[in-house]
Amino acid sequence: MKAHVWVLPKSTVLDPQGKTIQHALASLGYAAVKDVRQGKFFVLDLDGWTREEAQKHLERISREVLTNPVIEEYRFEIVE
Amino acid sequence: MKAHVWVLPKSTVLDPQGKTIQHALASLGYAAVKDVRQGKFFVLDLDGWTREEAQKHLERISREVLTNPVIEEYRFEIVE
Repeated sequence: MKAHVWVLPKSTVLDPQGKTIQHALASLGYAAVKDVRQGKFFVLDLDGWTREEAQKHLERISREVLTNPVIEEYRFEIVE
Repeated sequence: MKAHVWVLPKSTVLDPQGKTIQHALASLGYAAVKDVRQGKFFVLDLDGWTREEAQKHLERISREVLTNPVIEEYRFEIVE
């Protein structure tokens, strides 16, 4: 079983990396790119959990290990 | 229009960040997590492109700006 986890800066939080990329793209002629937000993406290989267990553990792993809850938010998806 | 871009280390490339997270999870009791790969995720706000133009430009932006093609691979998706 695999899980995908997305961690993104909260929409109220400044994202300097994203801004830098957006400016770089503008200077390359891609002015149509109005905003860029950069986050993290994790692919986890899971073995030995039922889907229900995975759901419960992933909630905790995402919240307590992969995300800084002050400035980031997450979502995850169990695949396969 | 929005686009999502995923950038991940190629499967043949070591991913020390992912490994570190996997070890941390194991030490927290999550031995069922057998492997972790860490990548980047971008959300782009687009304005003024048709879907066809977006497709073409995103291919280039992903390949030439967001990805290091020596060690990373990408995929993108146009949403909304």
